[in-house]
Amino acid sequence: MALTSIEDELRRLIADRVRAVAEQDSRTLVDAHHPEVVSYPVLPPVETHGTEAVADGLRTWLASYAVGPEYEVHRLHVGGADDIGYCAFRYHVSGRLHDGGEVDMWVRSTLVCRRVDGAWRVVHQHESVPFDPATGAALVSEAPVD
Amino acid sequence: MALTSIEDELRRLIADRVRAVAEQDSRTLVDAHHPEVVSYPVLPPVETHGTEAVADGLRTWLASYAVGPEYEVHRLHVGGADDIGYCAFRYHVSGRLHDGGEVDMWVRSTLVCRRVDGAWRVVHQHESVPFDPATGAALVSEAPVD
Repeated sequence: MALTSIEDELRRLIADRVRAVAEQDSRTLVDAHHPEVVSYPVLPPVETHGTEAVADGLRTWLASYAVGPEYEVHRLHVGGADDIGYCAFRYHVSGRLHDGGEVDMWVRSTLVCRRVDGAWRVVHQHESVPFDPATGAALVSEAPVD
Repeated sequence: MALTSIEDELRRLIADRVRAVAEQDSRTLVDAHHPEVVSYPVLPPVETHGTEAVADGLRTWLASYAVGPEYEVHRLHVGGADDIGYCAFRYHVSGRLHDGGEVDMWVRSTLVCRRVDGAWRVVHQHESVPFDPATGAALVSEAPVD
């Protein structure tokens, strides 16, 4: 039996996340977080601590879409050692909100994870878009270029 | 002789960064990065690879200030295992730019580091502010609250 590497396990964590968003499975999304997770979300609040805040944010996010969200991961980097690892990637999120707004956005995401009792849990996450210093506007359409 | 912990070493990495900004020591700032660093900066470009891009960004940043930058780190979280670690913190940056603009900004920062030949190097960094979805404006003044 081949041993899976930390990198394989972290790629599976991200694949599970993508599938859970597609299935609107907020339980799986929330359970992937450590109880003491420190989160820097793309939208306010600027910083949250603990899974309850993450769960609230995820449920609000999923519930805001009338169509979607479509969620695709690109340019995934993973690395780790022992019981700590990280994932850095760009995701494209799109769909139509209940308020009629169309979402078509590229976000940068960093997850730091610890393996607890054999399962990887996110202890820190950071999601963002850059902003234009001349206008102060968030740059939500910065797609990856190769 | 007491052994230093990974956490102590990472706190020192951040202290060195703070001192290097105060001294406009771009060499120390650049040398703290791994040659293959993947960076998600607070200002465009959205993503860079390698130390040359990081060095360009740091030199441009330091050179843009007529007074400052003042750079303070708050709410630092560190963790690690084996030869990988991370730092998550908020920083306050302020000063006056050569173009006359006043900077007074709170940024969220995540660094993922590897210990290479005994020295911690940043392999991934992510810096951002959140944005207001109603207006699309970057929220640059979100100070930590306790």
